[in-house]
Amino acid sequence: MIVQQYVQMLGKKSAIRELFDYGAQRAKEIGYENVFDYSLGNPSVPVPKAFNQALADLALSGNDLAVHGYSPSLGIPSVREAIAASLKKRFDLPYTAKHIFMTTGAAGALAHAVRAIAEPGSEVITFAPYFPEYGPYVSGAGCTLKVVPAQTSDFQINFEEFAKMLTPNTAAILINTPNNPSGVVYSQETLVRLADLLETRQREYGHPIYLISDEPYREIVFDGNTCPYAARYYDNTITCYSFSKSLSLPGERIGYVAVQPACRDGEMIIDMCGQISRGIGHNCPPSIIQLAVAQVLDETSDLSVYETNKNILYKALTEMGFSCVEPGGTFYMFPEAPGGDAEAFSRKAKEFDLLLVPGTSFGCPGHFRISYCIDTEKVERSLEAFRKLAAYYFGK
Amino acid sequence: MIVQQYVQMLGKKSAIRELFDYGAQRAKEIGYENVFDYSLGNPSVPVPKAFNQALADLALSGNDLAVHGYSPSLGIPSVREAIAASLKKRFDLPYTAKHIFMTTGAAGALAHAVRAIAEPGSEVITFAPYFPEYGPYVSGAGCTLKVVPAQTSDFQINFEEFAKMLTPNTAAILINTPNNPSGVVYSQETLVRLADLLETRQREYGHPIYLISDEPYREIVFDGNTCPYAARYYDNTITCYSFSKSLSLPGERIGYVAVQPACRDGEMIIDMCGQISRGIGHNCPPSIIQLAVAQVLDETSDLSVYETNKNILYKALTEMGFSCVEPGGTFYMFPEAPGGDAEAFSRKAKEFDLLLVPGTSFGCPGHFRISYCIDTEKVERSLEAFRKLAAYYFGK
Repeated sequence: MIVQQYVQMLGKKSAIRELFDYGAQRAKEIGYENVFDYSLGNPSVPVPKAFNQALADLALSGNDLAVHGYSPSLGIPSVREAIAASLKKRFDLPYTAKHIFMTTGAAGALAHAVRAIAEPGSEVITFAPYFPEYGPYVSGAGCTLKVVPAQTSDFQINFEEFAKMLTPNTAAILINTPNNPSGVVYSQETLVRLADLLETRQREYGHPIYLISDEPYREIVFDGNTCPYAARYYDNTITCYSFSKSLSLPGERIGYVAVQPACRDGEMIIDMCGQISRGIGHNCPPSIIQLAVAQVLDETSDLSVYETNKNILYKALTEMGFSCVEPGGTFYMFPEAPGGDAEAFSRKAKEFDLLLVPGTSFGCPGHFRISYCIDTEKVERSLEAFRKLAAYYFGK
Repeated sequence: MIVQQYVQMLGKKSAIRELFDYGAQRAKEIGYENVFDYSLGNPSVPVPKAFNQALADLALSGNDLAVHGYSPSLGIPSVREAIAASLKKRFDLPYTAKHIFMTTGAAGALAHAVRAIAEPGSEVITFAPYFPEYGPYVSGAGCTLKVVPAQTSDFQINFEEFAKMLTPNTAAILINTPNNPSGVVYSQETLVRLADLLETRQREYGHPIYLISDEPYREIVFDGNTCPYAARYYDNTITCYSFSKSLSLPGERIGYVAVQPACRDGEMIIDMCGQISRGIGHNCPPSIIQLAVAQVLDETSDLSVYETNKNILYKALTEMGFSCVEPGGTFYMFPEAPGGDAEAFSRKAKEFDLLLVPGTSFGCPGHFRISYCIDTEKVERSLEAFRKLAAYYFGK
C-alpha cells in the first residue's frame, strides 16, 4: 500500500514554490518583465564558457566508454584528485582523493554526510535562519533536527542558546555560511568560538561531534572578502559543496563531500558514503558532468552581478525604512518584515507584483527573503514597487 | 559517531567488483588483451551519435538558464511528456507526463518505487537469480527482501514456491526481465500467470500488491523478438527504466519511473516520488542529460554485437559440455558450474584468465555469470581458455 508518510507530505507545498508558481501565472497576465520575482534561488548568470566547451568536447570526443561509462561509486578517481588538489591549494589543508566523495549536488552531499555520522535517533543541530530542506535531509536519516533560534542582530550564532541545546545525543552541527537566507558570512570569531565549544563538548561526551558545513555559496562573497573556511577551524568538519551557484548550473546536480584530512574516521566516512549510496539509489553524479567540472575547478561564473544587486537593494531598502543585516555574500538578503507578520507582508507585496518569501519557512518569522539573482535592470525597476510597499507600511 | 550499519558493510566487497579489480591488476601483468574479463555488465558499444550531438548542441546553445537550470523535482515537463508519448506509442497504454518521474538511473527509480509503495516492515518478493543490489534498495526502505528460489530448468518463475511466499504483508513483487544474470526473457505465459496470481491475492488481502518491473535490458532481445511488457499484463505495475544499456551510457545515470496509467494511486505515487527525493538527496537527474535523452528516445546503440557474442558463446560452451539455459536477451548468460561449486569453478577459471562471476551473489549457487558485453574478437579468442577449462572439468 502506498506509504502514508509521503502522502502526508503531498499537501504541504513549500511557500517558495507556491510564490514561484504564482509568479509564473502572473507573468502570463501582465508580462514576465512586470513581475518582480524574488522568490527562487536560481542563478541567473551565464555558465563559464569553458564548462560548456568541456562538455561539448567530451561528448564529441569519440571516447564513449570513458566519457559515458560507469563511475566508481566514490567518483571518478581523476576528478576526486583534481578536487582534492584544488582544495589543498586554496585552503592549505592536505586533502587527497581519499577525502572526496562525488555527489549529485549539495542535496546528495548532505544526505550522505548525515547518514554517515548520525545514528538514527540522534540529533542534528542547525541555526535559524536555515534552508528548509535540512528538515527532510535529517529526518530522512532517522534523526531529529533541532534549531537554535536566530540571533537577529547580526545572524551570527546565538551561542547562549546553542550551548544549552548540545547534549550527549548530539551527533552533528549543520551550518551554512554564507547563509541562505540571511546572506551573512560567519566571521572567523564565530567559527573559532564554535570550534572551541565543540571541542569541549566532544571531550565531555567522549565522542566526536561532527560539523557539517554546507557551502554552496562559498564563492559568492562581497567587498573582495573571502569566506572563512570552516574546516580550517575544526578538524571534525565534513564540507558539503555544490557547483550549482559558483558555475551557475543548479540543474546539473554536481557536488561533493570533503572530509577534513584530520577528521576522525574521515577516510572511512568517505568509504561509507559508497555504501550509503546503495540503499538510497544515488550511485554517483553523471560521468560526463564529473569530467567537465574537473576541468573548470578554479573558475566561476561572473558573480559580480549579485554584489551589484545587493548594493542597489540594500541602499534603497534601508533608505526606505526597512531594517536589514547587510549581506556579506550569496544572492539573498533577509530584512525584517514591517508590522512583524511576514505572511501578511508577503501578501501585501504581491499586490505590487513583488514576490518575497516569508521567513517562517526558514525558522525565522518576522523576516522575509529577497533572492536577488535576477537582472540588475529588473532590480532597478522593482524599486518603485518597494517604495509603494514602504509607503504603505511606513507612510513615507 | 559514525554509523555502524555502514561500517559493517565496508568489509563486504562484492564478488563482481573483486573479480573486476583482479582483472585490472592482471591486465597490467599480462596485457589487457589477454584477460578475458566477463565480470562486469558494462556496455561496450558506442553511444548513438545523435545523443552526443544533442549534448554538445545543448552545451553550446548559449541558453544556459534552460539547459543548466533547475529541473522541477519530478523531471522536466517536456521530457516527461516525450517519454510518455514514446511509451504510449510503443506499448499502446495511455501514458501521459503525469505517469513519469525522472530518476538517476534504475537505481534511483527502484529506490523511489520501493519507498513509495512499501511501508517499512513490509515485504518485497523477488526471484532468483536476481541483481544483488536489490538487497540494499529494499533494506534501505526499511523492508525485507524475500527471494523465491530459482527455477533452474528455464529461469521462468517458480510459481509453486512463489505462491507459498505471498502473505498479507507482501507490498510488492520485483521482477527483472530480460534478466540479469540469466539473460532469460519472461514469457507472455509467465506474465499472465503472475498477473492472475497477484490479482487473486490482492482481492484476498484487500490491498494492492504492486509489481515493480526493472527493465534496463528491455531493448536487448534476440532473434528479432521483443520483450513482453509487464505493465500490459497487470495494472498495478511500476516500470523502472534506465537508458544505461539501450544507449550505452551507464555512467550518465538517467532513467525513470513509469506508473501504468490504470495503476491504483498511480499519479499520486509519482507525486510522492518528488517528496521521497527530498529525504534521500536525489533531486532529479541533471537537466542537460534529461534534455539530451529526450531527443533520442526511439534510438538505441547498435546492440547486435551482444547477440553475436551470445551465439558464439552459447554454441561453443554447450558443445564443450556446459549446461545452460539459452538467453533470450541482455548480455549475460548463466550456465551451471561444473562440479556444482561455483566459487571453486570461478577460481579455476582465473587460472586461464577467464573472469566469471559465481552465481551465489545472485541467489543461485551452482551457476556462474558470463557478461559478454566485450568485443567479439575477444570472445572468439577466449574460447581456447574455455576449452581448457572444459577439459579440466569434463576431461574432453
